[in-house]
Amino acid sequence: MSNFGFSELRLVNPYEVAFREARSAVKAQGILAAAREYSTVAEAVSDCALVVGTTSLGPRALEHPLRRLEYGGKLIAKKLASGPVALLFGSEKFGLSNEDVSHCHWLMRIPAREAHGSMNLGQAVAVCLYEIIRNPAAAKVKPEARRAADAGELERLTERLEEVLDRSGYVHARVEGSTHMKIRRLVRRLNLNAHDAEVWMGMLRQILWKLKRGESG
Amino acid sequence: MSNFGFSELRLVNPYEVAFREARSAVKAQGILAAAREYSTVAEAVSDCALVVGTTSLGPRALEHPLRRLEYGGKLIAKKLASGPVALLFGSEKFGLSNEDVSHCHWLMRIPAREAHGSMNLGQAVAVCLYEIIRNPAAAKVKPEARRAADAGELERLTERLEEVLDRSGYVHARVEGSTHMKIRRLVRRLNLNAHDAEVWMGMLRQILWKLKRGESG
Repeated sequence: MSNFGFSELRLVNPYEVAFREARSAVKAQGILAAAREYSTVAEAVSDCALVVGTTSLGPRALEHPLRRLEYGGKLIAKKLASGPVALLFGSEKFGLSNEDVSHCHWLMRIPAREAHGSMNLGQAVAVCLYEIIRNPAAAKVKPEARRAADAGELERLTERLEEVLDRSGYVHARVEGSTHMKIRRLVRRLNLNAHDAEVWMGMLRQILWKLKRGESG
Repeated sequence: MSNFGFSELRLVNPYEVAFREARSAVKAQGILAAAREYSTVAEAVSDCALVVGTTSLGPRALEHPLRRLEYGGKLIAKKLASGPVALLFGSEKFGLSNEDVSHCHWLMRIPAREAHGSMNLGQAVAVCLYEIIRNPAAAKVKPEARRAADAGELERLTERLEEVLDRSGYVHARVEGSTHMKIRRLVRRLNLNAHDAEVWMGMLRQILWKLKRGESG
Protein backbone atom coordinates (compact mmCIF):
# COMPACT_ATOMS: atom_id res chain seq x y z
CA MET A 1 0.00 0.00 0.00
CA SER A 2 2.74 2.40 0.97
CA ASN A 3 4.80 1.60 -2.15
CA PHE A 4 1.91 2.57 -4.40
CA GLY A 5 0.61 5.53 -2.40
CA PHE A 6 -2.53 4.06 -0.82
CA SER A 7 -2.96 5.18 2.75
CA GLU A 8 -6.23 4.02 4.20
CA LEU A 9 -6.21 0.51 5.63
CA ARG A 10 -9.41 -0.80 7.21
CA LEU A 11 -9.62 -4.12 8.97
CA VAL A 12 -12.69 -6.17 9.77
CA ASN A 13 -12.07 -8.39 12.79
CA PRO A 14 -8.32 -8.76 12.14
CA TYR A 15 -6.35 -11.64 13.59
CA GLU A 16 -4.55 -9.64 16.28
CA VAL A 17 -1.30 -11.62 16.35
CA ALA A 18 -0.62 -11.22 12.64
CA PHE A 19 -1.69 -7.60 12.70
CA ARG A 20 0.66 -6.70 15.55
CA GLU A 21 3.56 -8.38 13.77
CA ALA A 22 2.79 -6.43 10.60
CA ARG A 23 3.11 -3.13 12.44
CA SER A 24 6.88 -3.35 12.17
CA ALA A 25 6.81 -2.94 8.36
CA VAL A 26 9.56 -0.57 7.28
CA LYS A 27 8.31 2.85 6.10
CA ALA A 28 4.67 1.77 6.40
CA GLN A 29 4.22 2.47 10.12
CA GLY A 30 2.03 5.47 9.33
CA ILE A 31 -0.51 3.37 7.48
CA LEU A 32 -0.59 0.70 10.18
CA ALA A 33 -0.84 3.19 13.03
CA ALA A 34 -3.77 4.90 11.31
CA ALA A 35 -5.51 1.63 10.35
CA ARG A 36 -9.06 1.43 11.66
CA GLU A 37 -10.79 -1.69 12.89
CA TYR A 38 -14.44 -2.56 12.29
CA SER A 39 -16.61 -5.43 13.34
CA THR A 40 -18.60 -5.65 10.12
CA VAL A 41 -17.92 -5.13 6.41
CA ALA A 42 -20.97 -2.84 6.23
CA GLU A 43 -19.42 -0.37 8.68
CA ALA A 44 -15.98 -0.56 7.04
CA VAL A 45 -17.27 0.39 3.58
CA SER A 46 -20.13 2.72 4.57
CA ASP A 47 -18.58 5.88 3.04
CA CYS A 48 -17.47 4.22 -0.21
CA ALA A 49 -19.21 4.88 -3.53
CA LEU A 50 -17.85 1.65 -4.98
CA VAL A 51 -17.05 -1.63 -3.24
CA VAL A 52 -15.09 -4.22 -5.20
CA GLY A 53 -14.47 -7.70 -3.86
CA THR A 54 -11.49 -9.80 -4.91
CA THR A 55 -11.72 -13.49 -5.67
CA SER A 56 -9.47 -16.21 -6.99
CA LEU A 57 -12.41 -17.97 -8.61
CA GLY A 58 -12.51 -18.23 -12.35
CA PRO A 59 -15.58 -17.21 -14.34
CA ARG A 60 -17.86 -19.73 -12.67
CA ALA A 61 -21.47 -19.29 -11.80
CA LEU A 62 -21.29 -16.23 -9.59
CA GLU A 63 -24.13 -13.99 -8.55
CA HIS A 64 -21.89 -10.96 -9.17
CA PRO A 65 -20.33 -9.51 -12.30
CA LEU A 66 -16.70 -10.67 -12.41
CA ARG A 67 -14.03 -8.53 -14.06
CA ARG A 68 -10.38 -9.26 -14.74
CA LEU A 69 -7.90 -6.97 -13.02
CA GLU A 70 -6.65 -5.36 -16.25
CA TYR A 71 -10.15 -3.98 -16.87
CA GLY A 72 -11.45 -3.68 -13.30
CA GLY A 73 -8.36 -1.76 -12.21
CA LYS A 74 -9.07 0.88 -14.84
CA LEU A 75 -12.67 1.24 -13.63
CA ILE A 76 -11.45 1.67 -10.04
CA ALA A 77 -8.85 4.26 -11.07
CA LYS A 78 -11.59 6.29 -12.79
CA LYS A 79 -13.98 6.02 -9.86
CA LEU A 80 -11.26 7.08 -7.40
CA ALA A 81 -11.23 10.50 -9.04
CA SER A 82 -14.71 11.19 -7.68
CA GLY A 83 -14.73 9.43 -4.30
CA PRO A 84 -13.46 6.65 -2.07
CA VAL A 85 -13.45 3.07 -3.36
CA ALA A 86 -13.17 0.00 -1.17
CA LEU A 87 -11.11 -2.93 -2.43
CA LEU A 88 -12.10 -5.89 -0.31
CA PHE A 89 -9.76 -8.83 0.37
CA GLY A 90 -10.73 -11.94 2.27
CA SER A 91 -8.52 -13.94 4.58
CA GLU A 92 -5.70 -15.81 2.89
CA LYS A 93 -7.23 -19.17 3.71
CA PHE A 94 -10.91 -18.69 3.03
CA GLY A 95 -11.26 -15.59 0.89
CA LEU A 96 -14.44 -13.53 1.12
CA SER A 97 -17.63 -15.12 2.44
CA ASN A 98 -20.93 -14.89 0.57
CA GLU A 99 -22.02 -12.35 3.19
CA ASP A 100 -18.89 -10.24 2.53
CA VAL A 101 -19.44 -10.45 -1.21
CA SER A 102 -23.06 -9.28 -0.91
CA HIS A 103 -21.70 -5.84 0.01
CA CYS A 104 -19.81 -5.59 -3.29
CA HIS A 105 -20.91 -3.92 -6.51
CA TRP A 106 -18.80 -6.38 -8.50
CA LEU A 107 -15.92 -8.81 -8.14
CA MET A 108 -12.43 -8.71 -9.58
CA ARG A 109 -9.93 -11.46 -10.18
CA ILE A 110 -6.20 -11.43 -10.86
CA PRO A 111 -5.52 -13.36 -14.08
CA ALA A 112 -3.49 -16.11 -12.40
CA ARG A 113 -3.48 -19.48 -14.11
CA GLU A 114 -6.45 -21.67 -13.30
CA ALA A 115 -4.42 -24.49 -11.74
CA HIS A 116 -3.00 -22.06 -9.16
CA GLY A 117 -5.42 -19.20 -8.78
CA SER A 118 -5.12 -18.57 -5.06
CA MET A 119 -2.45 -16.00 -4.23
CA ASN A 120 -0.48 -14.90 -1.21
CA LEU A 121 -2.48 -12.01 0.30
CA GLY A 122 0.34 -9.43 0.29
CA GLN A 123 1.22 -10.28 -3.29
CA ALA A 124 -2.41 -10.10 -4.41
CA VAL A 125 -2.79 -6.64 -2.83
CA ALA A 126 0.46 -5.43 -4.43
CA VAL A 127 -0.58 -6.65 -7.88
CA CYS A 128 -4.05 -5.03 -7.64
CA LEU A 129 -2.70 -1.68 -6.44
CA TYR A 130 0.01 -1.73 -9.11
CA GLU A 131 -2.65 -2.17 -11.80
CA ILE A 132 -4.56 0.83 -10.41
CA ILE A 133 -1.55 3.17 -10.41
CA ARG A 134 0.22 1.88 -13.54
CA ASN A 135 0.67 4.57 -16.12
CA PRO A 136 1.86 3.48 -19.56
CA ALA A 137 1.99 7.08 -20.77
CA ALA A 138 4.51 8.03 -18.08
CA ALA A 139 6.50 4.86 -18.79
CA LYS A 140 7.12 5.87 -22.37
CA VAL A 141 9.23 8.85 -21.31
CA LYS A 142 12.76 7.53 -21.62
CA PRO A 143 14.73 8.62 -18.57
CA GLU A 144 18.05 7.90 -20.26
CA ALA A 145 18.73 10.29 -23.08
CA ARG A 146 22.29 9.60 -24.07
CA ARG A 147 22.96 11.05 -27.47
CA ALA A 148 23.33 8.33 -30.07
CA ALA A 149 26.64 8.33 -31.94
CA ASP A 150 26.29 10.22 -35.21
CA ALA A 151 27.27 8.94 -38.62
CA GLY A 152 30.65 10.71 -38.58
CA GLU A 153 31.63 9.13 -35.28
CA LEU A 154 30.54 5.70 -36.48
CA GLU A 155 32.48 6.09 -39.73
CA ARG A 156 35.68 7.09 -37.90
CA LEU A 157 35.19 4.08 -35.64
CA THR A 158 34.67 1.85 -38.68
CA GLU A 159 37.88 3.11 -40.27
CA ARG A 160 39.88 2.56 -37.13
CA LEU A 161 38.46 -0.95 -36.73
CA GLU A 162 39.35 -1.77 -40.33
CA GLU A 163 42.85 -0.53 -39.79
CA VAL A 164 43.17 -2.80 -36.76
CA LEU A 165 41.77 -5.78 -38.67
CA ASP A 166 44.01 -5.01 -41.62
CA ARG A 167 47.14 -4.91 -39.49
CA SER A 168 46.04 -8.03 -37.62
CA GLY A 169 45.71 -9.95 -40.83
CA TYR A 170 41.95 -10.39 -40.53
CA VAL A 171 41.34 -8.61 -43.82
CA HIS A 172 44.03 -8.88 -46.39
CA ALA A 173 43.44 -5.83 -48.50
CA ARG A 174 41.38 -2.69 -48.20
CA VAL A 175 40.23 -3.19 -51.72
CA GLU A 176 37.88 -5.93 -50.60
CA GLY A 177 34.74 -3.86 -50.91
CA SER A 178 32.32 -6.45 -49.53
CA THR A 179 34.32 -6.86 -46.29
CA HIS A 180 34.42 -3.08 -45.99
CA MET A 181 30.64 -2.87 -46.13
CA LYS A 182 30.15 -5.83 -43.85
CA ILE A 183 32.22 -4.12 -41.19
CA ARG A 184 30.37 -0.85 -41.65
CA ARG A 185 27.02 -2.57 -41.12
CA LEU A 186 28.43 -4.50 -38.15
CA VAL A 187 29.40 -1.24 -36.44
CA ARG A 188 25.99 0.35 -37.15
CA ARG A 189 24.21 -2.61 -35.56
CA LEU A 190 25.98 -1.93 -32.26
CA ASN A 191 23.60 1.00 -31.66
CA LEU A 192 26.36 2.89 -29.90
CA ASN A 193 25.80 6.09 -28.01
CA ALA A 194 28.33 8.89 -28.44
CA HIS A 195 30.04 8.15 -25.14
CA ASP A 196 30.56 4.45 -25.87
CA ALA A 197 31.74 5.22 -29.41
CA GLU A 198 34.47 7.37 -27.88
CA VAL A 199 35.48 4.59 -25.48
CA TRP A 200 35.73 2.14 -28.39
CA MET A 201 37.79 4.65 -30.36
CA GLY A 202 40.25 4.88 -27.49
CA MET A 203 40.51 1.10 -27.25
CA LEU A 204 41.09 0.71 -30.98
CA ARG A 205 43.71 3.49 -31.01
CA GLN A 206 45.60 1.72 -28.27
CA ILE A 207 45.42 -1.64 -30.03
CA LEU A 208 46.60 0.02 -33.24
CA TRP A 209 49.53 1.63 -31.43
CA LYS A 210 50.53 -1.75 -30.01
CA LEU A 211 50.18 -3.46 -33.40
CA LYS A 212 52.38 -0.82 -35.05
CA ARG A 213 55.02 -1.17 -32.33
CA GLY A 214 55.10 -4.93 -32.88
CA GLU A 215 55.65 -4.43 -36.61
CA SER A 216 58.49 -1.92 -36.21
CA GLY A 217 60.15 -3.86 -33.34
CA MET B 1 5.84 -17.47 -10.12
CA SER B 2 3.46 -20.40 -10.00
CA ASN B 3 0.39 -18.14 -10.02
CA PHE B 4 1.51 -16.51 -13.26
CA GLY B 5 2.90 -19.59 -14.97
CA PHE B 6 6.66 -19.02 -14.65
CA SER B 7 8.48 -22.21 -13.83
CA GLU B 8 12.23 -21.71 -13.86
CA LEU B 9 13.71 -20.39 -10.63
CA ARG B 10 17.48 -19.91 -10.45
CA LEU B 11 19.27 -18.90 -7.30
CA VAL B 12 22.71 -17.39 -6.92
CA ASN B 13 24.17 -18.21 -3.51
CA PRO B 14 20.79 -18.35 -1.77
CA TYR B 15 20.47 -17.92 1.98
CA GLU B 16 19.82 -21.57 2.80
CA VAL B 17 17.56 -21.05 5.82
CA ALA B 18 15.09 -18.82 3.98
CA PHE B 19 15.19 -21.04 0.92
CA ARG B 20 14.41 -24.21 2.88
CA GLU B 21 11.47 -22.46 4.55
CA ALA B 22 10.13 -21.35 1.19
CA ARG B 23 10.01 -24.94 -0.06
CA SER B 24 6.74 -25.46 1.82
CA ALA B 25 4.86 -23.04 -0.46
CA VAL B 26 1.45 -24.44 -1.37
CA LYS B 27 1.14 -25.61 -4.98
CA ALA B 28 4.61 -24.29 -5.86
CA GLN B 29 6.65 -27.27 -4.68
CA GLY B 30 7.42 -28.22 -8.26
CA ILE B 31 9.15 -24.91 -8.94
CA LEU B 32 11.15 -25.03 -5.72
CA ALA B 33 12.18 -28.65 -6.16
CA ALA B 34 13.43 -27.89 -9.67
CA ALA B 35 15.17 -24.64 -8.69
CA ARG B 36 18.86 -24.63 -9.61
CA GLU B 37 21.62 -23.02 -7.60
CA TYR B 38 24.60 -21.19 -9.05
CA SER B 39 27.62 -19.53 -7.54
CA THR B 40 27.77 -16.64 -10.00
CA VAL B 41 25.28 -14.50 -11.91
CA ALA B 42 27.22 -15.20 -15.11
CA GLU B 43 26.54 -18.94 -14.89
CA ALA B 44 22.90 -18.43 -13.90
CA VAL B 45 22.09 -16.30 -16.97
CA SER B 46 24.43 -17.87 -19.51
CA ASP B 47 21.67 -19.27 -21.78
CA CYS B 48 19.52 -16.11 -21.71
CA ALA B 49 19.23 -13.79 -24.69
CA LEU B 50 18.10 -10.93 -22.49
CA VAL B 51 19.03 -10.17 -18.88
CA VAL B 52 17.00 -7.50 -17.08
CA GLY B 53 17.93 -6.28 -13.62
CA THR B 54 15.38 -4.84 -11.22
CA THR B 55 16.05 -1.79 -9.09
CA SER B 56 14.15 0.45 -6.73
CA LEU B 57 16.25 3.45 -7.73
CA GLY B 58 14.56 6.31 -9.48
CA PRO B 59 15.93 7.77 -12.71
CA ARG B 60 19.25 8.76 -11.20
CA ALA B 61 22.63 8.68 -12.84
CA LEU B 62 22.83 5.02 -13.80
CA GLU B 63 25.22 3.44 -16.23
CA HIS B 64 22.34 1.36 -17.60
CA PRO B 65 19.17 2.27 -19.46
CA LEU B 66 16.32 2.28 -16.95
CA ARG B 67 12.79 1.42 -18.00
CA ARG B 68 9.54 1.54 -16.05
CA LEU B 69 7.77 -1.78 -15.61
CA GLU B 70 4.77 -0.84 -17.80
CA TYR B 71 7.10 -0.53 -20.80
CA GLY B 72 9.88 -2.94 -19.82
CA GLY B 73 7.35 -5.70 -19.13
CA LYS B 74 6.08 -5.43 -22.71
CA LEU B 75 9.62 -5.72 -24.08
CA ILE B 76 10.23 -8.82 -21.96
CA ALA B 77 6.95 -10.42 -23.07
CA LYS B 78 7.96 -9.90 -26.71
CA LYS B 79 11.47 -11.28 -26.19
CA LEU B 80 10.12 -14.34 -24.37
CA ALA B 81 8.53 -15.46 -27.63
CA SER B 82 11.98 -16.07 -29.13
CA GLY B 83 14.04 -17.31 -26.16
CA PRO B 84 14.69 -17.33 -22.42
CA VAL B 85 14.85 -14.04 -20.54
CA ALA B 86 16.39 -13.62 -17.09
CA LEU B 87 14.71 -11.26 -14.66
CA LEU B 88 17.24 -10.57 -11.96
CA PHE B 89 16.27 -9.63 -8.38
CA GLY B 90 18.73 -8.69 -5.67
CA SER B 91 18.46 -9.51 -2.01
CA GLU B 92 15.66 -7.72 -0.19
CA LYS B 93 18.12 -5.71 1.89
CA PHE B 94 20.80 -4.68 -0.59
CA GLY B 95 19.34 -5.16 -4.05
CA LEU B 96 21.67 -5.96 -6.93
CA SER B 97 25.38 -5.11 -6.69
CA ASN B 98 27.18 -3.17 -9.41
CA GLU B 99 28.81 -6.46 -10.40
CA ASP B 100 25.37 -8.13 -10.72
CA VAL B 101 24.06 -5.20 -12.74
CA SER B 102 26.98 -5.34 -15.18
CA HIS B 103 25.51 -8.62 -16.50
CA CYS B 104 22.25 -6.87 -17.43
CA HIS B 105 21.21 -5.43 -20.78
CA TRP B 106 19.03 -2.89 -19.03
CA LEU B 107 17.33 -2.17 -15.72
CA MET B 108 13.67 -2.04 -14.83
CA ARG B 109 11.87 -0.35 -11.97
CA ILE B 110 8.41 -0.75 -10.52
CA PRO B 111 6.71 2.67 -10.46
CA ALA B 112 6.45 2.83 -6.68
CA ARG B 113 6.38 6.29 -5.13
CA GLU B 114 9.78 7.86 -4.61
CA ALA B 115 9.47 8.16 -0.83
CA HIS B 116 8.97 4.40 -0.55
CA GLY B 117 10.54 2.76 -3.57
CA SER B 118 11.95 -0.36 -1.96
CA MET B 119 9.53 -3.27 -2.08
CA ASN B 120 9.08 -6.60 -0.38
CA LEU B 121 10.83 -9.14 -2.64
CA GLY B 122 7.87 -11.50 -3.10
CA GLN B 123 5.56 -8.59 -3.89
CA ALA B 124 8.04 -7.10 -6.35
CA VAL B 125 8.34 -10.42 -8.19
CA ALA B 126 4.54 -10.83 -8.28
CA VAL B 127 4.03 -7.33 -9.68
CA CYS B 128 6.70 -7.79 -12.39
CA LEU B 129 5.38 -11.17 -13.51
CA TYR B 130 1.81 -9.86 -13.52
CA GLU B 131 2.84 -7.04 -15.87
CA ILE B 132 4.45 -9.59 -18.21
CA ILE B 133 1.36 -11.83 -18.41
CA ARG B 134 -1.36 -9.18 -18.23
CA ASN B 135 -3.62 -9.22 -21.25
CA PRO B 136 -6.05 -6.33 -21.63
CA ALA B 137 -7.58 -7.89 -24.76
CA ALA B 138 -8.62 -10.99 -22.81
CA ALA B 139 -9.91 -8.83 -19.97
CA LYS B 140 -12.42 -7.10 -22.22
CA VAL B 141 -14.40 -10.29 -22.75
CA LYS B 142 -17.26 -9.95 -20.30
CA PRO B 143 -17.74 -13.29 -18.59
CA GLU B 144 -21.18 -12.31 -17.32
CA ALA B 145 -23.71 -12.08 -20.09
CA ARG B 146 -27.06 -11.78 -18.38
CA ARG B 147 -29.66 -10.47 -20.75
CA ALA B 148 -30.62 -6.91 -19.94
CA ALA B 149 -34.32 -6.34 -19.22
CA ASP B 150 -36.13 -5.18 -22.33
CA ALA B 151 -38.31 -2.12 -22.63
CA GLY B 152 -41.54 -4.09 -22.16
CA GLU B 153 -40.32 -5.65 -18.91
CA LEU B 154 -39.20 -2.28 -17.63
CA GLU B 155 -42.49 -0.64 -18.53
CA ARG B 156 -44.51 -3.35 -16.72
CA LEU B 157 -42.24 -2.86 -13.71
CA THR B 158 -42.76 0.90 -13.89
CA GLU B 159 -46.53 0.46 -13.96
CA ARG B 160 -46.51 -1.88 -11.00
CA LEU B 161 -44.24 0.50 -9.02
CA GLU B 162 -46.56 3.40 -9.78
CA GLU B 163 -49.53 1.40 -8.61
CA VAL B 164 -47.73 0.65 -5.33
CA LEU B 165 -46.75 4.30 -4.88
CA ASP B 166 -50.26 5.39 -5.75
CA ARG B 167 -51.85 3.08 -3.18
CA SER B 168 -49.22 4.06 -0.59
CA GLY B 169 -50.10 7.72 -0.99
CA TYR B 170 -46.69 8.68 -2.42
CA VAL B 171 -48.28 9.96 -5.64
CA HIS B 172 -51.77 11.34 -5.33
CA ALA B 173 -53.07 10.98 -8.84
CA ARG B 174 -52.01 9.16 -11.98
CA VAL B 175 -52.73 12.31 -13.93
CA GLU B 176 -49.49 13.82 -12.61
CA GLY B 177 -47.52 13.38 -15.82
CA SER B 178 -44.19 14.70 -14.54
CA THR B 179 -44.13 12.18 -11.66
CA HIS B 180 -44.98 9.46 -14.12
CA MET B 181 -41.97 10.29 -16.26
CA LYS B 182 -39.67 10.71 -13.29
CA ILE B 183 -40.51 7.19 -12.15
CA ARG B 184 -40.00 5.79 -15.63
CA ARG B 185 -36.53 7.33 -15.82
CA LEU B 186 -35.75 6.17 -12.28
CA VAL B 187 -36.51 2.57 -13.26
CA ARG B 188 -34.42 2.81 -16.45
CA ARG B 189 -31.42 4.05 -14.49
CA LEU B 190 -31.41 0.81 -12.44
CA ASN B 191 -29.86 -1.00 -15.42
CA LEU B 192 -31.74 -4.15 -14.49
CA ASN B 193 -31.12 -7.48 -16.10
CA ALA B 194 -34.13 -9.61 -17.02
CA HIS B 195 -33.73 -11.87 -14.01
CA ASP B 196 -33.62 -9.02 -11.50
CA ALA B 197 -36.53 -7.26 -13.19
CA GLU B 198 -38.59 -10.39 -12.60
CA VAL B 199 -37.56 -10.52 -8.92
CA TRP B 200 -38.58 -6.89 -8.49
CA MET B 201 -41.92 -7.59 -10.19
CA GLY B 202 -42.58 -10.37 -7.71
CA MET B 203 -41.77 -8.09 -4.77
CA LEU B 204 -43.99 -5.30 -6.06
CA ARG B 205 -46.88 -7.72 -6.73
CA GLN B 206 -46.66 -8.97 -3.16
CA ILE B 207 -46.55 -5.43 -1.74
CA LEU B 208 -49.52 -4.50 -3.89
CA TRP B 209 -51.46 -7.54 -2.66
CA LYS B 210 -50.75 -6.56 0.95
CA LEU B 211 -51.72 -2.93 0.31
CA LYS B 212 -55.00 -4.00 -1.27
CA ARG B 213 -55.77 -6.30 1.65
CA GLY B 214 -55.17 -3.50 4.10
CA GLU B 215 -57.59 -1.28 2.18
CA SER B 216 -60.34 -3.87 2.02
CA GLY B 217 -59.86 -5.04 5.62
